[in-house]
Amino acid sequence: MEKFAIGVDLGGSNLRIGAYSQSGKLLASLAFPTDAGSGHGRVIDKMCDSIRSLHQQALCHGEFAGIGIGSPGPLSLPDGTLHNPPNLPGWDGVELRREVAERLPWAVWVDSDANVAALAECRLGAGAEYAVDSLCMITLGTGVGGGIVLQGRLWHGLNGAAGEVGHGPLILDGPDCNCGARGCLEVYASATAVVRRARELSLCAASKAEPGADPAAVTAARVAQLALQGNPVARQVFDEAGYALGLGIANLVNTLNLPLYTIGGGVSAAWELFAPRMFTTMEAFSYVYRMSRPARPHQFERGKTHVCRARLGSDAGLLGAALLPFQSLRS
Amino acid sequence: MEKFAIGVDLGGSNLRIGAYSQSGKLLASLAFPTDAGSGHGRVIDKMCDSIRSLHQQALCHGEFAGIGIGSPGPLSLPDGTLHNPPNLPGWDGVELRREVAERLPWAVWVDSDANVAALAECRLGAGAEYAVDSLCMITLGTGVGGGIVLQGRLWHGLNGAAGEVGHGPLILDGPDCNCGARGCLEVYASATAVVRRARELSLCAASKAEPGADPAAVTAARVAQLALQGNPVARQVFDEAGYALGLGIANLVNTLNLPLYTIGGGVSAAWELFAPRMFTTMEAFSYVYRMSRPARPHQFERGKTHVCRARLGSDAGLLGAALLPFQSLRS
Repeated sequence: MEKFAIGVDLGGSNLRIGAYSQSGKLLASLAFPTDAGSGHGRVIDKMCDSIRSLHQQALCHGEFAGIGIGSPGPLSLPDGTLHNPPNLPGWDGVELRREVAERLPWAVWVDSDANVAALAECRLGAGAEYAVDSLCMITLGTGVGGGIVLQGRLWHGLNGAAGEVGHGPLILDGPDCNCGARGCLEVYASATAVVRRARELSLCAASKAEPGADPAAVTAARVAQLALQGNPVARQVFDEAGYALGLGIANLVNTLNLPLYTIGGGVSAAWELFAPRMFTTMEAFSYVYRMSRPARPHQFERGKTHVCRARLGSDAGLLGAALLPFQSLRS
Repeated sequence: MEKFAIGVDLGGSNLRIGAYSQSGKLLASLAFPTDAGSGHGRVIDKMCDSIRSLHQQALCHGEFAGIGIGSPGPLSLPDGTLHNPPNLPGWDGVELRREVAERLPWAVWVDSDANVAALAECRLGAGAEYAVDSLCMITLGTGVGGGIVLQGRLWHGLNGAAGEVGHGPLILDGPDCNCGARGCLEVYASATAVVRRARELSLCAASKAEPGADPAAVTAARVAQLALQGNPVARQVFDEAGYALGLGIANLVNTLNLPLYTIGGGVSAAWELFAPRMFTTMEAFSYVYRMSRPARPHQFERGKTHVCRARLGSDAGLLGAALLPFQSLRS
């Protein structure tokens, strides 16, 4: 009989819970606003009540493998202790795994949201599609996260911080980053960065002429829309994001030499806008990429370095969280 | 009875061959100038004659596990095909493993010189000293090479190019690099870079006053000597190398989150000259390092990120090559 697991996608805004079979089939799910400001105790109480209820519903589908939680970072692993998480204000020091394990009688695994998304992409997304078992996934959301899967398993490193590809020196004279450095990938390719850069370049002024445009309400999706309509300032914003992504992936290619790099998160919807500059930048800065690129950058070739959009969309985090109990079952 | 293996350190200038027991004890060795210009066929003939002779000498020490060769890159693995290696001019396209396997009746493994040095440092150098099984070693020689060992085994990536940490975007307005990019770690921290930068900063002029100083004969070791004597221009050269190393390692720490990074190769002898700036740069650019650094940067602490000088000196390449046959024996 197939096993099932429950995944939790603990976001700064929304909390989603899903029961999945081992093959990735959704059995039952729930979602509600996180309301992180009500305190971690309350949020975790509600999360655990929902897990109990889903467990009850899914029990007929097989043996229960346990609970996986994808959480915003920074967090140290395997205990899932949060360190001043910007998306969960007031949760500093919360030991997620212990908090849940104290409330429920089942095994609990915690990992970062970016890591579980990478695991899902590898097992059920682009990795499965191309039959590769190693990849790096870069998630372009409010921030930029990353996860590395090597030979089918998440690479956590010393204390779970591996795959922090959104941070680190990239464009040394770039804007300050929340991480304390400057010019990180996150300050160019996150949704926040797209909006900030659009404002800096006075995109709002440029789009004011449009009926109903509210300069204060600019979003990354709106900037993308303007870019697709041919707005040169909006196009520049994504071109710069593509340049930063190209530099970041060039370093990853030279360091890790993986078969697959996938880009997910909300900003990845603007793939057509940032991909051209991303590919030319990788080409210019990574001789390893030049040696191993496919004949056409958008087409997968076995034995070559492939960079593509992630496949699982906004479900990657939830699916990946539900895969954590199964990962630990593998030898 | 213990096994033994034969390692080959195929350098651009010298070829060294050593028979080692599985525990790393040297049983017999040979060295001679490579004379790469005489053609790969002749060099490999001579190499194989020497391997036969060492095999004969070492046979009394146990069963023979095979031959490991550390070669200058770029080369693709596992076949060990050379791609325009700058240190072996005229050897483009040579399939090292096949060439040796056709001449000798034993199993042959080929890997890059930087990879085998990393393997040796992990098993018998700093990795053994600190009891960690994952590290990244950066070799500062004529160029800058790198090797990554994860859980006791070399991480090769898709086609053996993993660990190319000497190349890739780092200081975007920096000097052109042989790899086709610019501002790579190699153009700041290699022996070649130290000499070039010393010349650019007119160190030769500054040291001309010294008796017997020949401006044309400046070497990285000589620049280091001048720096140790307090020469401010020479000190600046190593300070800049330390900055570039700090940036490069900051990226590695954020991506890989390894317990250990070791720096080897000739320039690593100037550790005291480049380490201070290297540590302050890592501190400034990697929040993962700040979260996981030991109380004192020079002291190893379990569970923390440690950066230190490699332990095995110029023997790392030879020892590591001899470890290749044993690596493949492990499950």
